[in-house]
Amino acid sequence: MGERERAILRDIRARALRGAEREGALRVGIGDDAAVLAVRRGEEIVVTTDFSLEDVHFRRGWHAPEAVGHKCLARGLSDIAAIGARPVAAFVSLAVPRGLTQGRHSWTARFYDGLLALAERWDVPLAGGDLAQSPGGADARAAADIVVVGAVERGRALLRSGAKAGDALYVTGTLGGAAAELRALTRSPARFRSVILVTPEHPHFFPQPRIGVGRALVRRKIATAAIDVSDGLSVDLEHLCEESGMRAEVDAALLPLGSGATLEDALHGGDDYELLFTADAGARVPRSIAGIPVHRIGRMLRRQAGRPQMALVKDGRRTELKPEGWQHF
Amino acid sequence: MGERERAILRDIRARALRGAEREGALRVGIGDDAAVLAVRRGEEIVVTTDFSLEDVHFRRGWHAPEAVGHKCLARGLSDIAAIGARPVAAFVSLAVPRGLTQGRHSWTARFYDGLLALAERWDVPLAGGDLAQSPGGADARAAADIVVVGAVERGRALLRSGAKAGDALYVTGTLGGAAAELRALTRSPARFRSVILVTPEHPHFFPQPRIGVGRALVRRKIATAAIDVSDGLSVDLEHLCEESGMRAEVDAALLPLGSGATLEDALHGGDDYELLFTADAGARVPRSIAGIPVHRIGRMLRRQAGRPQMALVKDGRRTELKPEGWQHF
Repeated sequence: MGERERAILRDIRARALRGAEREGALRVGIGDDAAVLAVRRGEEIVVTTDFSLEDVHFRRGWHAPEAVGHKCLARGLSDIAAIGARPVAAFVSLAVPRGLTQGRHSWTARFYDGLLALAERWDVPLAGGDLAQSPGGADARAAADIVVVGAVERGRALLRSGAKAGDALYVTGTLGGAAAELRALTRSPARFRSVILVTPEHPHFFPQPRIGVGRALVRRKIATAAIDVSDGLSVDLEHLCEESGMRAEVDAALLPLGSGATLEDALHGGDDYELLFTADAGARVPRSIAGIPVHRIGRMLRRQAGRPQMALVKDGRRTELKPEGWQHF
Repeated sequence: MGERERAILRDIRARALRGAEREGALRVGIGDDAAVLAVRRGEEIVVTTDFSLEDVHFRRGWHAPEAVGHKCLARGLSDIAAIGARPVAAFVSLAVPRGLTQGRHSWTARFYDGLLALAERWDVPLAGGDLAQSPGGADARAAADIVVVGAVERGRALLRSGAKAGDALYVTGTLGGAAAELRALTRSPARFRSVILVTPEHPHFFPQPRIGVGRALVRRKIATAAIDVSDGLSVDLEHLCEESGMRAEVDAALLPLGSGATLEDALHGGDDYELLFTADAGARVPRSIAGIPVHRIGRMLRRQAGRPQMALVKDGRRTELKPEGWQHF
């Protein structure tokens, strides 16, 4: 590690500790061999990791470093939300090409700005990680690995495997908005060059993890299963069906479309980071949870020979819904 | 993720679960949004992350994939050992260039072979992670990020900051052996091409994390501070001095040299992954802990104006010991 990387880490350590003192769960943060975290009695530990790779998940020419840092942490927090946990600490390992650590407003410093702003929003201390130079010379790419540690009441984690036949299927917020914004970005990247501030109008750049919803689903015992919609509804619903051993029917007319989104965007677009969850058909599910609108979009059914695992009901007709792999670009 | 990556992950999931069932701490492993871990009452959580980057920490032409996988996990376990914790679960995020996932004995499959062999040795389930294709075309490099979660009795973590004036300074095993082997490897890489099996004779390829020693130091309340020697004695001892606010004296004649190692290798060579720890001068420290030899090599002293932070005593003369940055290659 060079002197510049060390200076960046010193700065981050100072900023990260402010959050840690507020939180109280972090006994030892950046600067020892490992971070030491305290959780409450009766809680289990939850751990998630996610890569954010240049030219796979983001482009340096398209996305401001603040947005890359935000989304890197948002992906981890969204997994924590999907399992119903509260976030306890985050760790980020970042490899950047030579030159991206130069200056006070370097790409790297701005990446941490975006990440730490979201961390503060959810009171999650940045408790460690790594900062290294990417190998590969002029052709080197940036790569970040986010780790979020959370805690959840013992035995109460919202798993993908808990859906039962007859359960209703719900989704938070809207779907397809991120895909619609990505389409606009692809057409004219220059228009989006100044998108560096977190606003709900930029779902592709600044997705919002549904931590509050996940916690409410656990506390009020509403959900039987949950997953976050990161790869697109069709792909993530398939995971839910697979792990629960069920099939699903989605009603096209009930899908809440994001700004500019088509039905295709809502079905197959990724990066929305909304929560998809199931609840007993008789359960009272509010129209809004933790300030986020919730929509019923379909139901879970027992598997049947000759019936597809997922079906879309539209204009009174039932067709097979196939998972369509989401490519970030 | 392609079909090949999915097949590799299915295989890993099956193998990782066998370990998890034995361990009992893993409630939910690979296959949900996050892993769920249980720790014992009265324990704190410990988390460490470390990058292993191609051409920084390893070379594909020099190191067999099994050795890369082994060392990737060994680095994380060594941090867990240094803080005195027991390992609970590991997570690895791996990005590999196109082509390295092809075939049953692909580079990627062999990387996991090496990693899982070490995980089994310490009963650590692989509880999650990520597998992606490195961006960058023909020039792409492999990159792995290891996360190890551990648990330690509340308030008992061995920190870098606990050394007191008068404490004796100890090291486990031997120093410089990894640097000596790296020198031999640099001279004739072909000689080492078949080094794919874990043996103590290959400290550069297969470092052994000192988990047993770390646990004994905590249980028997022997150590006041500890760190693992990953960047070289001079660099890691400086961290211990800095965090404890002390200075240190090392006696050259007491340093246990690894096979083929010079004094320079022992002072500045990295990658040994031994534990460096301090203990009260009056404490009874056995000559061997958990089967690993332990040597007293110096002492900690109060800081004094005009005295260097670290000194080397050799042939009756005292000279300043400067931290010399270890470059992996």
